[in-house]
Amino acid sequence: MFSQTSEYALRVIVYLAGSKGRPVTNRHISAGTLVPQGYLAKVLQTLSRSGMVKSQRGLHGGTVLAKDPEILTLYDVVQCVDPIRRIESCPLAMLAHGKHLCPLHSRLDEAISGIETILRNSTIADLMESRSKHQPTTLCEPPAPATKRTGRSNAR
Amino acid sequence: MFSQTSEYALRVIVYLAGSKGRPVTNRHISAGTLVPQGYLAKVLQTLSRSGMVKSQRGLHGGTVLAKDPEILTLYDVVQCVDPIRRIESCPLAMLAHGKHLCPLHSRLDEAISGIETILRNSTIADLMESRSKHQPTTLCEPPAPATKRTGRSNAR
Repeated sequence: MFSQTSEYALRVIVYLAGSKGRPVTNRHISAGTLVPQGYLAKVLQTLSRSGMVKSQRGLHGGTVLAKDPEILTLYDVVQCVDPIRRIESCPLAMLAHGKHLCPLHSRLDEAISGIETILRNSTIADLMESRSKHQPTTLCEPPAPATKRTGRSNAR
Repeated sequence: MFSQTSEYALRVIVYLAGSKGRPVTNRHISAGTLVPQGYLAKVLQTLSRSGMVKSQRGLHGGTVLAKDPEILTLYDVVQCVDPIRRIESCPLAMLAHGKHLCPLHSRLDEAISGIETILRNSTIADLMESRSKHQPTTLCEPPAPATKRTGRSNAR
């Protein structure tokens, strides 16, 4: 029902929300969301263009969520990468129907509207709060950052 | 939200329901539903394989709906050609989640479940009954059958 691109974008946004402002590298995002790196770059580009995430190059660079998870909804994310389209006029372009959909398309549009409502009413923060015993993480635990070797503690 | 194939299959089924048992040729179905003939042949093949329609070759041949429109639902049609898939286990295959979806995938599955319910609760007969002043036909009027020339009345 949801495109691969929407699914991936949602994973990425939820993952970034979990990193709480700490910039995350593409390699880590890919490992944590299982979004292939090539695909990830394209998804991040679209999300970045719409101002949903911010990326910074360099040594301590990476990507952060640029929107408030309390306001950002699943709908916003999906509409950013692969918009849900309501049926607004007869797909058969029946002039006799004008703006009034035939019963088939009214029913299909009602179904799409239902999805839209659920996604509009779900903020990223809602997901972060709804963890339970069975769902210990929002998406999956961010991989532990690699331990830095200072060259002292491990020196023999 | 719905694939082209689902949309086309639904149009075809609704159109055939409107012909009330009279076999309709592919040419007429294509003209009435605006489904291209090549695509139509494939859709009809799938619908026929599942016993939803019956086709007969020959002079008075054509396709008829083989199921009771009072029982046949939009869900049945969609599941026949391009099934809606619920999210039953974590798409990231997180072993820690087991059969328990993470909040993101729970919410997406809830949305898909909503669509499923609306389609399950809509029979083809419902659509036929819900015509109004603005929606004079279920889908669109079947084109009037070509007048037969007997060779007598028009003879000069």
